[in-house]
Amino acid sequence: DFASNGNNLGKVFVDYTLFKGKAALSMSPVLPKFSKINAGNMRVEKKGSVLLTFFPAIGERKYDWQKKQVFALSATELGSLISLGPADSAEFFHDPSMKTSNAGQVRKSLSVKPLSDDGGYYFSLNVVNAMLKTNERFYVPVSKAEFAVMRTSFSFILPHIMGWDRLFNHQVPASTSVS
Amino acid sequence: DFASNGNNLGKVFVDYTLFKGKAALSMSPVLPKFSKINAGNMRVEKKGSVLLTFFPAIGERKYDWQKKQVFALSATELGSLISLGPADSAEFFHDPSMKTSNAGQVRKSLSVKPLSDDGGYYFSLNVVNAMLKTNERFYVPVSKAEFAVMRTSFSFILPHIMGWDRLFNHQVPASTSVS
Amino acid sequence: DFASNGNNLGKVFVDYTLFKGKAALSMSPVLPKFSKINAGNMRVEKKGSVLLTFFPAIGERKYDWQKKQVFALSATELGSLISLGPADSAEFFHDPSMKTSNAGQVRKSLSVKPLSDDGGYYFSLNVVNAMLKTNERFYVPVSKAEFAVMRTSFSFILPHIMGWDRLFNHQVPASTSVS
Amino acid sequence: DFASNGNNLGKVFVDYTLFKGKAALSMSPVLPKFSKINAGNMRVEKKGSVLLTFFPAIGERKYDWQKKQVFALSATELGSLISLGPADSAEFFHDPSMKTSNAGQVRKSLSVKPLSDDGGYYFSLNVVNAMLKTNERFYVPVSKAEFAVMRTSFSFILPHIMGWDRLFNHQVPASTSVS
Repeated sequence: DFASNGNNLGKVFVDYTLFKGKAALSMSPVLPKFSKINAGNMRVEKKGSVLLTFFPAIGERKYDWQKKQVFALSATELGSLISLGPADSAEFFHDPSMKTSNAGQVRKSLSVKPLSDDGGYYFSLNVVNAMLKTNERFYVPVSKAEFAVMRTSFSFILPHIMGWDRLFNHQVPASTSVS
Repeated sequence: DFASNGNNLGKVFVDYTLFKGKAALSMSPVLPKFSKINAGNMRVEKKGSVLLTFFPAIGERKYDWQKKQVFALSATELGSLISLGPADSAEFFHDPSMKTSNAGQVRKSLSVKPLSDDGGYYFSLNVVNAMLKTNERFYVPVSKAEFAVMRTSFSFILPHIMGWDRLFNHQVPASTSVS
Repeated sequence: DFASNGNNLGKVFVDYTLFKGKAALSMSPVLPKFSKINAGNMRVEKKGSVLLTFFPAIGERKYDWQKKQVFALSATELGSLISLGPADSAEFFHDPSMKTSNAGQVRKSLSVKPLSDDGGYYFSLNVVNAMLKTNERFYVPVSKAEFAVMRTSFSFILPHIMGWDRLFNHQVPASTSVS
Repeated sequence: DFASNGNNLGKVFVDYTLFKGKAALSMSPVLPKFSKINAGNMRVEKKGSVLLTFFPAIGERKYDWQKKQVFALSATELGSLISLGPADSAEFFHDPSMKTSNAGQVRKSLSVKPLSDDGGYYFSLNVVNAMLKTNERFYVPVSKAEFAVMRTSFSFILPHIMGWDRLFNHQVPASTSVS
């Protein structure tokens, strides 16, 4: 496997984080993983995503990263957010244990709804864990300007999430990039 | 010739595939091929495209890749799709044997029409083969979110299809890139 | 000086050409030229552009490249075209001999007007040469799809015309890139 | 630290400058600085920005660069400008001495308001310095075409300001990029 940054030069940590009253929302891209198939050829083994991380406020300008919950946006979910009109809403459902014996035990839903005032959106993540009997909810208002950053950076990263840049951007020699 | 990925480090296989009820639609870029003309200078020998591949459903979540039909979108056809308004339609006609003795024997038409409900489009490919006396038709509904992925990735890849990135992105040393 | 493609690996010739009834219109980017100023630092010496080349039809599907006239679009002129609304027009005036003793002898004007039917634009170039007593005019209708290719590729190339990619894209080692 | 251009090959100076009647406005990107954290991994140490530099006209087509004032636009402020509608305004406030003992002594405000006529915007920077008892104001009208250049180049540079390109664009070997 490749490292999640697509090469073996060490990871680079980048994010864009919004600190709000009840919670913070951090987002960072996860590039696809490629595997060698034959003769130096490669294909996508694991698709990329944009990882949203929500973590709660525990005081004024204090946040608890340990209590974070994550939601990995797929290419199509990114397409949904990029093309969201001013009055549109979106809702996505994930089961992190899908296709395992724990399927259905944890249900995550991300809801994106327009803010009334300024052209921004209200992001809320709900995580219900039947095993732990927990029900967590995070609320983060995203302003029009902040959503423009999301839209622009998501549009930028989408082809890379899909691996389309790798057709002409062989930064990693095939001989060294596969473990 | 270059390999279709524009260099000699092996091919990279990437696509974006939509699996729907009657058929699946896969799309992947094909970079232009360059040829050396003199003194290390290069020009486009064969234009790039985005290859659409349709293949039929043959059961629940089962698809038959062997029965695929392809349609290669040119730069201008990509421009047409990128600029498609919510109520717009597009239709493209290809003859894979154009300018050969078999011209007119196989006629392909790709039709893109708005879906009534959600801002997406209905893609249908019709392939009529007079020699084999076959008439195949593939239907794939594309949601607004999926079309946003297409629009974003097509906009990203278009300048590369045209070779404009090669002005500043000489990833392949001239000495090794021409057969 | 750099070569116009921004490095010393040989030039790459790429364009996008529209062949129409009365004339053809070809467009290709010209990257900025940089010069070393000190200690390995560089700055833009000559700004980039997108070169429009018009050449006349001289028969059915025959064109005469020798009779071409060119018009180099600046960053701001590209901005004007990129942001053109469906009913907007634009007109640009160039004097290729500006600030020389021949100033005013050759006047070039590029006019872009909306086509009535399909969302495209009518490009016309007028070149008046007082010395040669010539007055040439080229007309090229550009469809909505073709203009979408122009808009997308011009948006792509604009930051490169401005040299902004060179902040993080040192493809050319400083030691070899300056003559 | 990295150099502000993100590598150690020397700086590259690029800008886009608008010369108007009362003042000129120059803009150029500042990439983020990364620091090594461990095992070849890196993270953003100082965020990137787009630096706006205003300098006054002191005669016909003469400007005084020595009297310049700067305003560094953050990712979210860039998002605000990128998403500005034709009738929208924006205003940003900076205190260059924030969190120091001089906090509040210098107040900068950038105001962006629509021009009545052509779809452009009026940029004005006000710098009040309580220590020097100065109050400077710069006015620069930005046309629709010029703002399209700003919008396109800001959209291009935003993911780089955020460092998101560094996930797949390790131009600088980790071993040499940290001082």
